[in-house]
Amino acid sequence: MGEFELIERFFKRPVRKAALGVGDDCALLHCAPGMQMAISTDLLVQGRHFFPDVDPFALGHKALAVNLSDLAACGARPLAFTLALALPQAREEWLEPFSRGLLVLADDHGCELIGGDTTLGPLNICVTVFGEVPTGQALLRSGAKPGDDIYVSGTLGDAYLALKSLLGELALPDALLAKTRQRLERPTPRVALGLALRGVASAAADISDGLLGDLGHILEQSGVGASLDTSVAIHLLAAYADISGASGLFDPSQSTALALQCVLSGGDDYELVFTAPAAQRAAVATAALQGGVAVTRLGQIDSAPGLRLVDGHGHAVANQFASFDHFANG
Amino acid sequence: MGEFELIERFFKRPVRKAALGVGDDCALLHCAPGMQMAISTDLLVQGRHFFPDVDPFALGHKALAVNLSDLAACGARPLAFTLALALPQAREEWLEPFSRGLLVLADDHGCELIGGDTTLGPLNICVTVFGEVPTGQALLRSGAKPGDDIYVSGTLGDAYLALKSLLGELALPDALLAKTRQRLERPTPRVALGLALRGVASAAADISDGLLGDLGHILEQSGVGASLDTSVAIHLLAAYADISGASGLFDPSQSTALALQCVLSGGDDYELVFTAPAAQRAAVATAALQGGVAVTRLGQIDSAPGLRLVDGHGHAVANQFASFDHFANG
Repeated sequence: MGEFELIERFFKRPVRKAALGVGDDCALLHCAPGMQMAISTDLLVQGRHFFPDVDPFALGHKALAVNLSDLAACGARPLAFTLALALPQAREEWLEPFSRGLLVLADDHGCELIGGDTTLGPLNICVTVFGEVPTGQALLRSGAKPGDDIYVSGTLGDAYLALKSLLGELALPDALLAKTRQRLERPTPRVALGLALRGVASAAADISDGLLGDLGHILEQSGVGASLDTSVAIHLLAAYADISGASGLFDPSQSTALALQCVLSGGDDYELVFTAPAAQRAAVATAALQGGVAVTRLGQIDSAPGLRLVDGHGHAVANQFASFDHFANG
Repeated sequence: MGEFELIERFFKRPVRKAALGVGDDCALLHCAPGMQMAISTDLLVQGRHFFPDVDPFALGHKALAVNLSDLAACGARPLAFTLALALPQAREEWLEPFSRGLLVLADDHGCELIGGDTTLGPLNICVTVFGEVPTGQALLRSGAKPGDDIYVSGTLGDAYLALKSLLGELALPDALLAKTRQRLERPTPRVALGLALRGVASAAADISDGLLGDLGHILEQSGVGASLDTSVAIHLLAAYADISGASGLFDPSQSTALALQCVLSGGDDYELVFTAPAAQRAAVATAALQGGVAVTRLGQIDSAPGLRLVDGHGHAVANQFASFDHFANG
């Protein structure tokens, strides 16, 4: 199978919204009046972001999901994306499910594949995504104010729990591994929530490197600090009940530390962390309904710089959690 | 050096035209009224697109140049680009010249770096570029009409001659290798020519996979055929005089075949191949002046499908030239 047949068979589809799709030197997108184009790009590398034997359908899904998650964090509506793909060989058994995983999610969000590049090389997937947002309404990392509430969407840390198990760092029962692995390999981008938070949230980011790291970007860019309640945060791990208490998997102190590590610094969650003034609590609840996902309030923005962890009684908890850094942890 | 320090030191710059640059979940671009956004993405993989020991400044230049060349082929004005970079390690000695090569060319074209992604992995560079073009004025591959002239800009084949020498397939004198290697490693995107050809050319493409292959895309998408004069084409190789005649490098039949191979199917030229009605010859000459590059008329579009090579007397020349295909030739 040659390069052009590969594109024709697996990736070329009629365009619906774009002015010009796959097959020319450039794709062409219409720019609606009063809109800004939101753009994000992510690179997935075998051995860094996924295992060599990962299900290609799940990989196609995730390659687009992590980019849609960036649009969600800006409150942008997905329009289109490009795909640059380096492949060790052109195998139909891989390309068919990979393109299906990618395009099923794309269709769910009305996000068209408008162009790309394919080449031989170690497996490497670069997706660049385009969304639109009314001028001035994008959710930024820089808008958090002292007194704002801090929220996260959905559950956190289960992806990291699965990763630790797959890396052999801990043992999970098969059913629990299967459940948490879904979160690692099939993340759900919170696009509808991001759209619903326009005009409600004061700042937002998506959680790819871990809650503390990504909230840290909001704090840094907003010039503020924060305190987080770990007694609330620990319950964000969907698997918390499975690994704690009478499960027998870990002793109690171990399961608490593990759960907090997963929630606070695990990463690969693709949930949103966002801030909103206390006066917006009802609006946040409405946005969660519109977004189809629960949100949890777990802290507050302070004027004093730094991030403080507290327990349910307001007492300080030592912060030994680091967020993911490709080069520092590499 | 961590991931964020790396971005801060080498790639983050104040934005001038974009609404929001590096450092948030998405970048934001303004959409000017009446404009379409032209988008192209290219992936450069070590061992496929460049040698492991390539000068990082040249590599930075080329990674953006090949994308600007796609904008040129559409007649789009460069606005901005994103960079997704997988690196085996974060070495300042490499990052400094790489980012300089990239950003010097970006500044030449007023094209801002607005976002990206960095990760550990085999060296792999994915650039996605954004340009603007008035709605309906983009140069497409699909507009060629029977009777149109066929032109190419600049010179062709010297990059491929250098590549063959670097691969050890032929021996070139040092001075000639140095000269042709410049064309391989430091291509010049024909952005000004592309802009000047709006409203003049009927179809255009950039030459990355070889003249016959890229002209072939125009023919296929326009539903036409073409004839090309090889006696004109052979002189497009700037090094033709150096490798033919009394140079002693090759015998005459060998040098003719080699020159034609380089020009017709070499690739990596990043010149434009375009078509225009005969009534536009004066306008094409003016566009060449505005574009700062010579253009050569070397054939004609026919209604009969297929691509015919002819000599200076109009006699058929056998076509044994194939264009580059990453998977078929891989």
